[in-house]
Amino acid sequence: MSEPIYARIAVIGCGLIGASVILAARAAGAVGEVAVADASPQARARIEALGFADQVTDDPAEAVRGADLVVFAVPVMAMEAAARAAAPGMAPGVTVTDVGSVKAAVGEALAAALPETCLIVPGHPIAGTEQSGPDAGFAELFQHRWVILTPQARPDDAQGAAPYAAAVERLTDFWTALGAHVELMDDKHHDLVLAVTSHLPHLIAYNIVGTAADLEGVTQGEVMKYSAGGFRDFTRIAASDPTMWRDVFLTNKDAVLEVLGRFTEDLQALSRAIRWGEGDKLFDLFSRTREIRRGIIAAGQESAAPNFGRDLRPPAEQSEAPDTKAQ
Amino acid sequence: MSEPIYARIAVIGCGLIGASVILAARAAGAVGEVAVADASPQARARIEALGFADQVTDDPAEAVRGADLVVFAVPVMAMEAAARAAAPGMAPGVTVTDVGSVKAAVGEALAAALPETCLIVPGHPIAGTEQSGPDAGFAELFQHRWVILTPQARPDDAQGAAPYAAAVERLTDFWTALGAHVELMDDKHHDLVLAVTSHLPHLIAYNIVGTAADLEGVTQGEVMKYSAGGFRDFTRIAASDPTMWRDVFLTNKDAVLEVLGRFTEDLQALSRAIRWGEGDKLFDLFSRTREIRRGIIAAGQESAAPNFGRDLRPPAEQSEAPDTKAQ
Repeated sequence: MSEPIYARIAVIGCGLIGASVILAARAAGAVGEVAVADASPQARARIEALGFADQVTDDPAEAVRGADLVVFAVPVMAMEAAARAAAPGMAPGVTVTDVGSVKAAVGEALAAALPETCLIVPGHPIAGTEQSGPDAGFAELFQHRWVILTPQARPDDAQGAAPYAAAVERLTDFWTALGAHVELMDDKHHDLVLAVTSHLPHLIAYNIVGTAADLEGVTQGEVMKYSAGGFRDFTRIAASDPTMWRDVFLTNKDAVLEVLGRFTEDLQALSRAIRWGEGDKLFDLFSRTREIRRGIIAAGQESAAPNFGRDLRPPAEQSEAPDTKAQ
Repeated sequence: MSEPIYARIAVIGCGLIGASVILAARAAGAVGEVAVADASPQARARIEALGFADQVTDDPAEAVRGADLVVFAVPVMAMEAAARAAAPGMAPGVTVTDVGSVKAAVGEALAAALPETCLIVPGHPIAGTEQSGPDAGFAELFQHRWVILTPQARPDDAQGAAPYAAAVERLTDFWTALGAHVELMDDKHHDLVLAVTSHLPHLIAYNIVGTAADLEGVTQGEVMKYSAGGFRDFTRIAASDPTMWRDVFLTNKDAVLEVLGRFTEDLQALSRAIRWGEGDKLFDLFSRTREIRRGIIAAGQESAAPNFGRDLRPPAEQSEAPDTKAQ
């Protein structure tokens, strides 16, 4: 096997994504040693038991000592505190990245907390599941998924300058080795794109599940029994980690409120079309939306099997699927 | 094999659901002969090629002649015309059902169109995929899914009277043989429950996919590439049959507008919480919604595997999945 891309990585916060980064990097031979810092004693115990880290600690500064890549994988609003705690251990010239779902706010937080000698390259793998915690991680999570890096403008050292550009390139190689496709993007543009493709869908899903739970006249038991009519599709992302998602909405407020405003406007027009019996308007929209799904399947981001393929597995196998929820 | 439950069934309109009823009934030995009427020459040609019907015709009256069960499986607003066309062939005492997603309007339409000697038991299998047309049908579609029957109050013959009650019981046995669980329900209650668990989710999904397609500043290519962040989950049901769904919204207008009003109200409260940075409110909702998904999995209506299990199948197998869209 060739040399690993990084001799030692430190992962700060080891939930679904942190654990998957480690497992994927190990599977690809992209890393030598792995150090993990996690604030939760329960998570540390699980990580020790799973055995995928060479060092497990509660102290970020200790974990990052000697690392040539540091990956912050904590909820977005916990990034700054984690970075401040790690700062004393950071070697000059170390590459620092993260996996947060919001990029402008996280880039600012990392820059504020870390020494200027750190090469900060914020990042976001567009991958995940509705489960959380180190047990939920798996090596294949990033296969054929996109990772967006948002290189920063550096006051002292133009964005294209050699050490920073080299750090971006090496991090790109790392994610590519893990099976992902890498794209570079402006952080504000990232936050708008993800507001549409991820943040708004989660908000809508959380909202509809809440509405259904509270509706008088229909019991929760009925909602669950008859959920195969469409509702169950929404419950998957509405089962995602609450802390992570609270932080996303609070730190990407402007973009989320903007796309939410557009969504609501469109929904009011649909509501009006229903009230006035304008069948043609409904039919036109319902025909147009099929094309988008075909494009997503063609882009390799979705299964073409009906019902996501979930009906293809026998119920026995489904109920044997591990419940890896950590909280 | 024991006697089939019905010696001859007629299926009027043979898309995803009609074809699946036939395939499931044949697999279960629940039916002797099968006659199909479909208005579309393309669909009739496919049904002939698939070979699962003993008779294929464009004339509903011809198909229902000699049947002891007639299943209307056309879009909701096409039910009345199909029933009028079938009426001349209906034998006295035949059981008539349907598979429409709205029950009060369909029950009225069938009663208006058919002779009083027909025993009309409206029905709705809570099962389906985003695909349409006879090629999309499969025998396992109703396994572990619920079928709701909405027996009608009959002026001449109390609801519990012997022939009608026997028809309901026999139809229950039929769906049970196909692998489904059967529940009897008042039609107006059905329409409210399904407005929550099916109609509103489809409306929201169609709407968000439309909003994303039209947003300036974000290209359709970006929406597709980064859809694994949540958006792709919505595109599945937004790829459902446009005619079927137009009819659902036009015929279940009151219940849909009522639950849509509640959804919008809740969404405005969420929007306000984001604007004012009320993290606790967001966290509380996001925690509550996890429980609903656990309940749906426990009720056997959903896969427990992360990402619906779609990542468990290798991409090669996924791309070999048949594209059975008929339109």
